Amino acid sequence: MKITNLLNSSSEWLKGDGGCNRIVISTRIRLARNIAKTPFPGWAKKAERERILGIVQPAVASMTEMSHAIINDSMEHFSPLEKQVLVEQHLISREHAAKNAGSGLVVNKPRTLSVMINEEDHLRIQAIKSGQQLSKLWRMVEKIDEELETKLDFAFSPQIGYLTACPTNVGTGMRASVMMHLPGLVLSDQITQIIKAVNRIGLAVRGLYGEGTEALGNLFQVSNQITLGESEAQILERLTKVINQIIEHEENARQRMLQDKARMVADQVGRAYGVMMHSYSITSKEVLNLLSLLRLGVDLGMLPEDYRVIIDELFIRTQPAHLQKDFDRKLTTEERDGLRSDLLRQKLKFIPVPNTKGLVEGFASDDEVADRAGKEPPKPAMRDDDEDEEIEDDED
Amino acid sequence: MKITNLLNSSSEWLKGDGGCNRIVISTRIRLARNIAKTPFPGWAKKAERERILGIVQPAVASMTEMSHAIINDSMEHFSPLEKQVLVEQHLISREHAAKNAGSGLVVNKPRTLSVMINEEDHLRIQAIKSGQQLSKLWRMVEKIDEELETKLDFAFSPQIGYLTACPTNVGTGMRASVMMHLPGLVLSDQITQIIKAVNRIGLAVRGLYGEGTEALGNLFQVSNQITLGESEAQILERLTKVINQIIEHEENARQRMLQDKARMVADQVGRAYGVMMHSYSITSKEVLNLLSLLRLGVDLGMLPEDYRVIIDELFIRTQPAHLQKDFDRKLTTEERDGLRSDLLRQKLKFIPVPNTKGLVEGFASDDEVADRAGKEPPKPAMRDDDEDEEIEDDED
Repeated sequence: MKITNLLNSSSEWLKGDGGCNRIVISTRIRLARNIAKTPFPGWAKKAERERILGIVQPAVASMTEMSHAIINDSMEHFSPLEKQVLVEQHLISREHAAKNAGSGLVVNKPRTLSVMINEEDHLRIQAIKSGQQLSKLWRMVEKIDEELETKLDFAFSPQIGYLTACPTNVGTGMRASVMMHLPGLVLSDQITQIIKAVNRIGLAVRGLYGEGTEALGNLFQVSNQITLGESEAQILERLTKVINQIIEHEENARQRMLQDKARMVADQVGRAYGVMMHSYSITSKEVLNLLSLLRLGVDLGMLPEDYRVIIDELFIRTQPAHLQKDFDRKLTTEERDGLRSDLLRQKLKFIPVPNTKGLVEGFASDDEVADRAGKEPPKPAMRDDDEDEEIEDDED
Repeated sequence: MKITNLLNSSSEWLKGDGGCNRIVISTRIRLARNIAKTPFPGWAKKAERERILGIVQPAVASMTEMSHAIINDSMEHFSPLEKQVLVEQHLISREHAAKNAGSGLVVNKPRTLSVMINEEDHLRIQAIKSGQQLSKLWRMVEKIDEELETKLDFAFSPQIGYLTACPTNVGTGMRASVMMHLPGLVLSDQITQIIKAVNRIGLAVRGLYGEGTEALGNLFQVSNQITLGESEAQILERLTKVINQIIEHEENARQRMLQDKARMVADQVGRAYGVMMHSYSITSKEVLNLLSLLRLGVDLGMLPEDYRVIIDELFIRTQPAHLQKDFDRKLTTEERDGLRSDLLRQKLKFIPVPNTKGLVEGFASDDEVADRAGKEPPKPAMRDDDEDEEIEDDED
């Protein structure tokens, strides 16, 4: 089963390097490309799709970048579970997971580059890296695109650019997206306002798994909407500017929270810690939100920096398909929720209690609280029911 | 301030003695009595009410049972906060807390007996004890009633019994209620059905603070509705039977949960523990629900029995007025929620992690989970930048 090795180590884009990794989790750029004078996959007959696959897949696999490809296969060779693992690792789209014979996938060894063949377009070339790496990633994608253009005849119009199955991709065929972790803007109720502002300037904000998905774990994907009438460089420049602005807003929101609502922050991080350490059943959605708060705890110095990579890895490892692949069997929802909590408790066994020293301003001195609670370890209160009964007995 | 000593020690009814104290928290019986040929408090002029108070209060205070009364005062001498403390200790009704000059209160030393004067009726005699003590309590109340009848002329009709301001109390004037802790029936979704069945046989089920209040903390008060046409003995016999049936249902529900849903139980108790130990802000309502789950943990042997009394005490100590009396100042909601969490963390500092050994059936062996998580304490994945830094240090 070729996919097993996807689980043995983390994807490179999860390693936590790259710029601004406190707030930007990962950057992705994908290009939509199609073979000239050939029907798009959605309109093509099966034989036609298979012919295209037969041309495109070897061309992709033969690139230098793909020399030790971890995956080079047709989609019908993956089980539904394996496809779900690929979705959870952001290596294929949910749409591509529904494809079978006639569609293919090639992924390079470090899992930074994946090419979907016969998804909505003949080629969807995707590069992904951790942190804010838009320029680096663009250079990588551009090189791949140029190399492929020497081997394949892409459908291109001098007037409008690359032709694509869906008009929203026509032109550059490029979608650049940045996955941001924005708990500060969420906790301070500024996120809706930010999303609106970003939408107004032609950028989209989406949830963890792209279009139409919920923004779980305070994770948001910011991407360009427009592909026509602007060059790739212009689009990336604008996106970079906006990302930088959002980072600034997020940093400000966190600063203000630490100044004005430190107790609320400590409470959120503390509760997330408490629940993860002591629950025995937990859904994948809840875990995303709790991990998000632990990650914020690391950012704010309440938890050791060492745990950032572990937390980032858990974002993926706790997802349903990964969990099943991890335990190498099909699991019911109940079993998944149980094993997920077991895995979390085990993984976070050595994580220290979030440090709130100097963070939480007391409404009373520690001494006063200790005094009210009783300074000694709590002992059961003396019961004097025996005494009472004795008196009553006397009366009888 | 007479009321301060109410906070220095727990009420006797919180001491956790009495029968069936795993499920029955406390028992209360109250009698409504009125002075013959005198308008009820709601119809009486102020002067008339004060005249009645002047007759009733000394009569009550002079009883043997009240010989070392902890409270013997007129309602206008209590601050709103003090009145709230009395409500939270179940010593007066919320209605009586709204009263001022012309209404009075006498409470005996162990706080098992309180007499409200000029609440809805001229006298509301209330006895409260922990656990299921209906018969014992009835003997106590009967004795008080007989003693008072030698001093006061109660409005009584040979046809219908004691006359009261509200027709729902006419007859015996007695309301007997039992506070039950029913997390098993709540968690197994049987509580609505039980409430309906109990209602059908003329008993009422209410929340923590009586009529019209929410059933927080899985606490329910079961009491008689009917006061007319049945003797006190008949009412108490029927109530006792029903209480015993509910106890049986609750025990069964817990047994079944332990058999079929042990992980769910462990999860609920564990989460309650985790949140209480690590939160920095917590509302009084949330605390009731969390304490309820910890109490269930004690019942099921997951937490030491010694903590039952501490938990029961916290049910009252964490309520808003008690908290403010504890810290001896007026507190905003934000301050209360903060201090409540500080007090809880301090109080429960030594409570062990809920023991789930032998309770939670694994979906995978412990070894397998440990294997998936990595047997060693998690170490940060090697980062390239770390290496860089070490090399830099060497160079220095």
